[in-house]
Amino acid sequence: MSVVVQKYGGSSVGTTEKIKKIAQSIIKRKDKDTDLVIVVSAMGDTTDDLLSLSKGIGEEPDKRELDALLSTGEIISSALLAMAIKGLGYDAISYTAYQIGIKTSGQYGKALIEDIHGNKIKKSLKDGKIVIVAGFQGINGEGDITTLGRGGSDTTAVALAVKLNGRCEIYTDVSGIYSVDPRAYSEAKKLDEIEYEEMLELASLGAQIMHSRSIELAQKYGIPIYVGLSDSDIKGTVIKEVKNVNMESKPVTGIATSDDDVAVTLKNIPKDVNILSTIFEAIGSKRVNIDMISQSSPVDGMVSVSFTIPKESLKDSLKIIEKLTVDNKVIVDEDITKFSMVGLGMKTTSGVAARMFKVFSENDIEIKMITTSEIRITCAIKTSDKLKAIKLVAKEFNL
Amino acid sequence: MSVVVQKYGGSSVGTTEKIKKIAQSIIKRKDKDTDLVIVVSAMGDTTDDLLSLSKGIGEEPDKRELDALLSTGEIISSALLAMAIKGLGYDAISYTAYQIGIKTSGQYGKALIEDIHGNKIKKSLKDGKIVIVAGFQGINGEGDITTLGRGGSDTTAVALAVKLNGRCEIYTDVSGIYSVDPRAYSEAKKLDEIEYEEMLELASLGAQIMHSRSIELAQKYGIPIYVGLSDSDIKGTVIKEVKNVNMESKPVTGIATSDDDVAVTLKNIPKDVNILSTIFEAIGSKRVNIDMISQSSPVDGMVSVSFTIPKESLKDSLKIIEKLTVDNKVIVDEDITKFSMVGLGMKTTSGVAARMFKVFSENDIEIKMITTSEIRITCAIKTSDKLKAIKLVAKEFNL
Repeated sequence: MSVVVQKYGGSSVGTTEKIKKIAQSIIKRKDKDTDLVIVVSAMGDTTDDLLSLSKGIGEEPDKRELDALLSTGEIISSALLAMAIKGLGYDAISYTAYQIGIKTSGQYGKALIEDIHGNKIKKSLKDGKIVIVAGFQGINGEGDITTLGRGGSDTTAVALAVKLNGRCEIYTDVSGIYSVDPRAYSEAKKLDEIEYEEMLELASLGAQIMHSRSIELAQKYGIPIYVGLSDSDIKGTVIKEVKNVNMESKPVTGIATSDDDVAVTLKNIPKDVNILSTIFEAIGSKRVNIDMISQSSPVDGMVSVSFTIPKESLKDSLKIIEKLTVDNKVIVDEDITKFSMVGLGMKTTSGVAARMFKVFSENDIEIKMITTSEIRITCAIKTSDKLKAIKLVAKEFNL
Repeated sequence: MSVVVQKYGGSSVGTTEKIKKIAQSIIKRKDKDTDLVIVVSAMGDTTDDLLSLSKGIGEEPDKRELDALLSTGEIISSALLAMAIKGLGYDAISYTAYQIGIKTSGQYGKALIEDIHGNKIKKSLKDGKIVIVAGFQGINGEGDITTLGRGGSDTTAVALAVKLNGRCEIYTDVSGIYSVDPRAYSEAKKLDEIEYEEMLELASLGAQIMHSRSIELAQKYGIPIYVGLSDSDIKGTVIKEVKNVNMESKPVTGIATSDDDVAVTLKNIPKDVNILSTIFEAIGSKRVNIDMISQSSPVDGMVSVSFTIPKESLKDSLKIIEKLTVDNKVIVDEDITKFSMVGLGMKTTSGVAARMFKVFSENDIEIKMITTSEIRITCAIKTSDKLKAIKLVAKEFNL
């Protein structure tokens, strides 16, 4: 029988009433003769509540213990969902990460799934049970509980689909993936499908729909992911490999924006001294993600360098910069929104950047910095220009 | 180095502030060169909160899933305590039941600890870590999460003390074990020590200080248990084997009362028919604990039989009785308090029951039923007589 792995997010299991409603739609699906594995996130604000408990103990909680703490949220929701399904007369069983051997490696708080010991699940499916799995968590080589990072339940679902050779369905409170965030642009179009690479760029650029790692994993194993509303006639979006894209017609697939960064500019740096690599290494060693980097042309042998870092890392990064520089003027610009256009079509369509520049310049939107990759263009703009930029670019590229 | 296993109850870990306070007293103890293993209950009302979540799903939640749900409370408190200790600069590590292999057998919700795989704890102690263990839970032969019943963290602590050949200390919000509940009799004396058998009787009779199974386990392996306040100069009580008790001087050690039962009386039962054993078997098969049983002398070949059962089982039990009897008059008396006196000294001291009867009859306390064992006398009395009975008997036997 075909296996379907479904994932339900935190807001769809926010209350016991909602859990009972999900149980209803799960058994309807089960009646269609499908083996079902259900991955759940923690109920509503549970993860935030657990985080604030840990803040009550101290500002910088031990990471191993924090993961053990946070893992309980998904154990709670998975047990409740299994109860609800059994209450409807269907057989169900909940499993924690250690019970089904979800092995992870890497750091606490952002562990990577290495493998899943699938036999217990296969046995339960064979016995006719609906299997419920606590998402977001794993067990590392030391037997410690690890978590996969915010949204990690998506990755649990995709990893299970890979292991069980099944399909993957992610149910959220939005009806699919939009070219632009509909809260920012009400005319945004929902996409019927989107390519892995594009989705990956959008996810990593701030479109908080999916856990990036889940898309990487799906891409690696060629597992299509359906994203949409549960128990609804509204068709969602399929993330998959798209062959033979008609690239001419659609150079841009989507827009993502993020307000989480600041720009730091170092003035008057001698162009032939290694100070920059020293600073970048020192900041990078604190696991701070340095993103957009731009350098001015040398004037009198001196250059200016700008780069963006997450707001939350600013304080620590400035300390490092102060230690490593002498007399360099440091300017911090907190009025930064990263505005990104993503599209596989950019690979072959020229003039995409030019069209964007034109729209921005005609409408007085200042571009502070810019970086590009094969399938995206990212500009740093003023946060106050964000909504205007979204609307203009969405219209320009018919998103 | 000597190992001490400490258990902290739910009220002493009720808030993050309290957890930080406990962490302080734990590191003070650690400084005295002791290997410490700490067992924690769930924070305050967590277990009740989880129970009411499950009630939101349905009245009779699946027992396997309920255990998985309830186990999270202790994982939360143990992770938080480990964070708090690490925050004070001491090394600590929290473990769930599966991480240290607490193997159980028996039913969900009242599983029995069979064994603990101690190596991981020993290794952590050797590394200088303070080990924190989530109480109340284990893993059964199928790999399912099981819980040990209300108060089960006591049993986790004793089982660890047995496995690690250490001492056991149970910290609560009372300063020790009293001969009588101090809330009912303010002059009640705290006991310096109490024998296992006596404590076991008191615990099973309604003195809700300790999990009965923890005392059985301590008795089996001869592990003394200290019960008292944490970080206090007030001396608590040691539960242990007491040799050569001066029995003459102290026939009664303590009093316990319980309002949790009702009495059921069946009238006009032919004395030579097997109806009683049929009824008792049928009720017992529903895991209802039938306690006090008394039978009247036959009149015209007919007897009356009375017995007590837990209030919560009354409805189900009456259904069984109705099915199995014809025309037997059934009387239910809900105004029942079980009043028990316990003392090893009763084995050799005669007249204890007589002294109690005299006190009760002089003060118009009606004895509805009575049962005795070697070291206890239990009467069913009116609930309105409870406080009076406690005061009179405590005075009579100098408790």
